[in-house]
Amino acid sequence: MKKITIKEIAKITGVSSATVSRVLNDNGRFSEETRKKVLDAIEKFEYRPNVVAKSLRTSRSKTIGVIVPDITNEFFAHIVLAIENLCVPRGYSVFICNTSESEEKEKMYIKDLEAKGVDGLICLSGIMDVPADVTRQQIPVVCIDRKPNNQHVIMVESDNVTGGYLATEELIKKGCQKIVMLRDERGVSPMQNRYVGYQQALADYGLPLDKNLVINVQVDVFSAKRAITELIQAGVAFDGVFAGTDWLAFGALMALKEHHVQVPEQVKIVGFDNITVSQFSSPAITTIHQDKAKMGETAAKVLLDIIDNGLDHVKTRNITLPIELIRRETTG
Amino acid sequence: MKKITIKEIAKITGVSSATVSRVLNDNGRFSEETRKKVLDAIEKFEYRPNVVAKSLRTSRSKTIGVIVPDITNEFFAHIVLAIENLCVPRGYSVFICNTSESEEKEKMYIKDLEAKGVDGLICLSGIMDVPADVTRQQIPVVCIDRKPNNQHVIMVESDNVTGGYLATEELIKKGCQKIVMLRDERGVSPMQNRYVGYQQALADYGLPLDKNLVINVQVDVFSAKRAITELIQAGVAFDGVFAGTDWLAFGALMALKEHHVQVPEQVKIVGFDNITVSQFSSPAITTIHQDKAKMGETAAKVLLDIIDNGLDHVKTRNITLPIELIRRETTG
Repeated sequence: MKKITIKEIAKITGVSSATVSRVLNDNGRFSEETRKKVLDAIEKFEYRPNVVAKSLRTSRSKTIGVIVPDITNEFFAHIVLAIENLCVPRGYSVFICNTSESEEKEKMYIKDLEAKGVDGLICLSGIMDVPADVTRQQIPVVCIDRKPNNQHVIMVESDNVTGGYLATEELIKKGCQKIVMLRDERGVSPMQNRYVGYQQALADYGLPLDKNLVINVQVDVFSAKRAITELIQAGVAFDGVFAGTDWLAFGALMALKEHHVQVPEQVKIVGFDNITVSQFSSPAITTIHQDKAKMGETAAKVLLDIIDNGLDHVKTRNITLPIELIRRETTG
Repeated sequence: MKKITIKEIAKITGVSSATVSRVLNDNGRFSEETRKKVLDAIEKFEYRPNVVAKSLRTSRSKTIGVIVPDITNEFFAHIVLAIENLCVPRGYSVFICNTSESEEKEKMYIKDLEAKGVDGLICLSGIMDVPADVTRQQIPVVCIDRKPNNQHVIMVESDNVTGGYLATEELIKKGCQKIVMLRDERGVSPMQNRYVGYQQALADYGLPLDKNLVINVQVDVFSAKRAITELIQAGVAFDGVFAGTDWLAFGALMALKEHHVQVPEQVKIVGFDNITVSQFSSPAITTIHQDKAKMGETAAKVLLDIIDNGLDHVKTRNITLPIELIRRETTG
């Protein structure tokens, strides 16, 4: 079936093309009768606007790009879902690009998205600066869970300092004195902030900071398992683990179970993120809930606001979202 | 910085715009010297082709759409990742649309993607027919894990019949006589095929098919847990569970543990999919591995092939990929 044009819709309904266009965009004056007539014809002949052609006229592509380090990571998937849920009903499509945690791929994708004429970008938890190209081209960028150096970039993140504090405080209140922290070896900003919270809680409760208990690991379950196994084998005494992610917490739990260390009786664990693994592991893992839906939604709202009203319109450049302690069996 | 145009690149390098264009598209005749000159200028002035304008000229948008029921489901996320990994290096961007298992949203998205002028569609595991609109517009469609009625649609799926057979056979060989099957109540084609395999294995090993042991559930962990709890409470005797997904297997395991039924000693379990939960649950769950990367890759390859060479070029309309039994502790 041949696609019907605005001109043909105008001819059929006996109004001008300009009027059809005004009805389509709900923009300007037309009678209720005209509106009904045009919409009926659109329905009947299945007219669909050619978005590619339209984007050239308005210089809007009605697409936004999302850069995500790992779509198979549930934490990111939930944020991406929230972004899509907000953007699509507002007429935007979402390009999702997976960088597999590679800086090079991230740069490549940002250039690619720029070439495709996206109206804005949301970058999740990258490890590099937003490339200067993007700055130059004035594409609005909102970052989630990463501290960009670029001044005009908006940042959305969880209150990681408080998160680190609450996690550590929970362990202290349940009697832990020697608390291991497992953290991302890359020193990314969210993890740095969780470490700040860990230090503050120790200080507030009069516990010394023992650098031997602060372990840098790759963020995967087996690195965490290995790190805790090494501590056990080296005979290092500890009675609590604050893991920077739930997967790190799960790796710690695996190592402890394998060495017949009772959790929570001998060692207590708190994770971070509140993803499925913490809910369903056995014992279930106490964790810090990050509001993934809210993070995605907030970033998307701010981005669309900048696209519509410009950057100067936005008052807060750093948006921090509250977190919550979820008590489960590993601190029971 | 203002974007540089082909015209300006031509002026700088002293060749015609048409020559610049030929170099850019690696199309037609030009000297090695010209090529170098043009590419150097492109590099230096950071020229990037306007893909939106280009797509109008070539009537290719260089984008494909992916319809996915739930991006936060690891099984789908891995397939989507594989699609992206294949398409992006070939110059295609991927629109991912999440339908939250809603038929209505799926229809809406397909229309939306069509309006955006995508070159092709990949539909993951939907429950409805591909809308006739798509057929009419001749957009190539490849379906994964769903049996479409539309004749011109290509289908990629795992060998679910053999999967169901191997799962059931494993339970029988380990001594199970009364095997529960937990299956998706929606009666979607992959699950139907797993059920066919289950029936065949029972027949081949001379075991009766007991309809009371075939339980239809919603595909989530808690429905499975509830279903197995009810069987236990009703005093129904069973010594094996073939769960249609790993999450269903995990729900069954939770129910059995809660009622102090020993796994694998008293009841053995086999899942389906081979996602993280089956690897990391305790005990680890024996499962049927679906090659998610291969499914995504195959679907993407076929789709790009149709886009380039037309549908008639494609010989096989139903592509079935091999599966594999992964033995773990629940049948140990």
